[in-house]
Amino acid sequence: MDVAVAGDTHGAYALGKLTAVVLDALAEGATVRGGPLPGGGPGAVAERLRAACAPVLPEHGTGAEEALRTVVRAVAEGAADPADPWCAAHLHCPPLAVAAAADLAAAALNPSMDSWDQAPAAAVLEQEVTAALAALVYPREASPDALITSGGTESNLVALLLARERARAAGAPAVRVVCGANAHHSVRRAAWMLDLPAPVTVECPGGRLGPAAVERALTELGPGAGPVLVVATAGTTDEGLIDPLPELARVAARHGAELHVDAAYGGPLLFSDRLAPLLDGLDSAVSVTFDLHKLGWQPVAAGVLAVSRTELLAPLALRADYLNADDDEEAGLPDLLGRSIRTTRRPDVLKVAATLRALGRTGLGALVEHCVATAREFAALVDAHPALRRHPGEPGISTVLFRPVAADSAPPAEGDALVAEVRRRLLAEGRAVVGRAVAEDAGGTRRLWLKATLLHPRATADDLAGLLGLTAEAAGAVAAAGAAGVAGASGAEAAARTPHVPEPEGP
Amino acid sequence: MDVAVAGDTHGAYALGKLTAVVLDALAEGATVRGGPLPGGGPGAVAERLRAACAPVLPEHGTGAEEALRTVVRAVAEGAADPADPWCAAHLHCPPLAVAAAADLAAAALNPSMDSWDQAPAAAVLEQEVTAALAALVYPREASPDALITSGGTESNLVALLLARERARAAGAPAVRVVCGANAHHSVRRAAWMLDLPAPVTVECPGGRLGPAAVERALTELGPGAGPVLVVATAGTTDEGLIDPLPELARVAARHGAELHVDAAYGGPLLFSDRLAPLLDGLDSAVSVTFDLHKLGWQPVAAGVLAVSRTELLAPLALRADYLNADDDEEAGLPDLLGRSIRTTRRPDVLKVAATLRALGRTGLGALVEHCVATAREFAALVDAHPALRRHPGEPGISTVLFRPVAADSAPPAEGDALVAEVRRRLLAEGRAVVGRAVAEDAGGTRRLWLKATLLHPRATADDLAGLLGLTAEAAGAVAAAGAAGVAGASGAEAAARTPHVPEPEGP
Repeated sequence: MDVAVAGDTHGAYALGKLTAVVLDALAEGATVRGGPLPGGGPGAVAERLRAACAPVLPEHGTGAEEALRTVVRAVAEGAADPADPWCAAHLHCPPLAVAAAADLAAAALNPSMDSWDQAPAAAVLEQEVTAALAALVYPREASPDALITSGGTESNLVALLLARERARAAGAPAVRVVCGANAHHSVRRAAWMLDLPAPVTVECPGGRLGPAAVERALTELGPGAGPVLVVATAGTTDEGLIDPLPELARVAARHGAELHVDAAYGGPLLFSDRLAPLLDGLDSAVSVTFDLHKLGWQPVAAGVLAVSRTELLAPLALRADYLNADDDEEAGLPDLLGRSIRTTRRPDVLKVAATLRALGRTGLGALVEHCVATAREFAALVDAHPALRRHPGEPGISTVLFRPVAADSAPPAEGDALVAEVRRRLLAEGRAVVGRAVAEDAGGTRRLWLKATLLHPRATADDLAGLLGLTAEAAGAVAAAGAAGVAGASGAEAAARTPHVPEPEGP
Repeated sequence: MDVAVAGDTHGAYALGKLTAVVLDALAEGATVRGGPLPGGGPGAVAERLRAACAPVLPEHGTGAEEALRTVVRAVAEGAADPADPWCAAHLHCPPLAVAAAADLAAAALNPSMDSWDQAPAAAVLEQEVTAALAALVYPREASPDALITSGGTESNLVALLLARERARAAGAPAVRVVCGANAHHSVRRAAWMLDLPAPVTVECPGGRLGPAAVERALTELGPGAGPVLVVATAGTTDEGLIDPLPELARVAARHGAELHVDAAYGGPLLFSDRLAPLLDGLDSAVSVTFDLHKLGWQPVAAGVLAVSRTELLAPLALRADYLNADDDEEAGLPDLLGRSIRTTRRPDVLKVAATLRALGRTGLGALVEHCVATAREFAALVDAHPALRRHPGEPGISTVLFRPVAADSAPPAEGDALVAEVRRRLLAEGRAVVGRAVAEDAGGTRRLWLKATLLHPRATADDLAGLLGLTAEAAGAVAAAGAAGVAGASGAEAAARTPHVPEPEGP
């Protein structure tokens, strides 16, 4: 039976044999797929995966090599691969090989970051890397700090938890969260989980959180409302826009409110000397969400929550005798337990450290600049395309919204249905992965747009040009089959599927 | 600059070159370490790591190969390696090579489990594997379900969240949690995060949650208290004990309370026909926490939360237009967003699927049986050792508590201080990683014990015998230097470090 373990001096040998199988299976799966995602749509993909992998819990095993060949090949064949430039829907980056390779070491060594005696060196590496990232966000603070999280959702959750506990410690009423309609859904979800009052949601015409609107919301709440946390976004999910941080910081300060910035997308602009000024005002925030699995090219997960002063993390302190007994701590064993809301925790910092060292700050900055520049070039290609129309706003960090002009000639709901159907058609055919976003058109109408989120560190506008032709072609086919699209994998019922264009939430 | 990405048809080639560097660095690091953990204690380990890896965010990069060589070697050299049989402190397993290799594919492909168009095949694999695990826990239910989590802490958090929301949906007062003093700290932490009343904590003489004590607690709460969730444990952290599940289920049912079982440690007993009966009553629980990164030999993270009926997961439902728009779902794109409290989420299921296929249910069951049997043999070795005394209770699942007899001849506080110092001495010398646990001695006195948690799938009692001699030798040295130990890395202040032996929390 295959019970080779990955660690120790022999583990690397056992692991070497098996990683060779995995690398072959990855290459084979990608070749069979032959594009950015598998063709045939959800039903066909599910059928192929099930046929290859059933039963998933057999009575008797097939051995490590067979299992890896089968499972890895099936998942690779059925992957939406962001390493393909035409896989550009989400904040879903192609991971750098250096980061993926380093992650193998994390899996093999399996340190757990909740006590020193499970992660003696990895814990120190985390301390060093989080200190460096905290200093990047807060260059003028004496004792900034940062935690490694599973992503922006956990970072925002912890930011709100810390705010809740600050309010409690001060004997104040529950903290009120004020955020934009453009904030990530995880802000509202965090308030729900933490049992805080639902956030006051401020409308965001133009996609950005306006200081005047926040001012009005804060004034309405009044001083009796108790502590307030204003949540701004640096890199919105739909449009990649950065809220006006310096103005928001001033408004918040004037009302005695604190500011949290969700820079899950935009944070890595700090690596670039040229782009960092876009985040001016960031260090006015009490806490900053910051992902390295978006711009940062890490495999998921590589989340960060930075805070301006290390004492702000005090509410996470926790004592569990088996992990951080008082006498062990007095004797010099570091207490790691208060660095997360998780207990057992994988060393996501290892791949981050390998990447920072391999590329350096300027190297990462150059990749961020590449994505930002490519988005501008891609926007120009859209502008030049006769069958496509770009969203009237400027492109976001590396996000470009556009739609087929055919969608504009239809009545609004049908036009939006066409946009949605074009996206689904490209997905079902396995030809491209583009996203969808609702955003205001000129004149303020909310419409559905196709979204390209450009995170590929090497892909150029030339690589992406064909995506526009493909989109236009798909739009033509969908339009020809009827404005709401009987074409595509999903057949005639398509006409019934009017996209839901959410209204902005009122305060 | 090294901007090779890990995916696509070329990624496997770039990744192959770099994984070779990683495997060499892992082997080198393990050789230099030459034992279960690095010697010298926390200060020396930190100094070596910092010297090797500074600066962690250089201005200019050193390239992928140099970075991997340096960072991986330093972390491997400074690892506490559970592949060494003498690294046996925690529920910290040596990962199987098959699982670590599969995890490389997860990093390279980087699917994100929050939408179909980021994880077409991986999402289906997760569906199949969670269905199989849910059926293992709930063989008699028609529609059991399970989520993949980051570990027991997240599983317990979600279990309490679901209970909170069930109470709310019924218009009932806040759910009250009743748990044992033996419950994992994450239960109390979850109640805190979710802003629930602090759990009613029931004393656990003997280490197990007693049905009579729970009965009393439920009676005291009375029917006016509203909904109650009783939390039992199958595999306590300190002693590896299983609470009497059938009796607890009956008590809970009699009072109209629900039962959640934290089987993070014990859940995998289900893989073994011979051991599964130890978990009789488990399927009376409304939800079950179940980790595969303990007994299950996965690299962290591989957590599971099983629920008896899929509708119980409804409170996690969430709509975010960019990920699961209504019209996309109507058109057949699966909605994955309600399967987690995270958004972006790595496919931890991939390594689990590869392992289940490689070993089969019976193969995993045999490994679980091996650990359970080894613990019995190890306990017998302790019993036969003249300088050590075993905890009077039976061994837990694969956990054995013991202490030097030298600690018994000292006054209680000094005896406990000696136990703690023996553990720290072994850690500082880099010779062994044993844990610590507070547990009742014969007569009911709470004492500090050394803890061996045996999770190695191949290590035998023979491999572990030397650990006992080493412990006895360290105890002799500590005792000779004064009962509270001036020996060891931490010097003369040791005398001041009386271990904190927590009192059981009252209700």
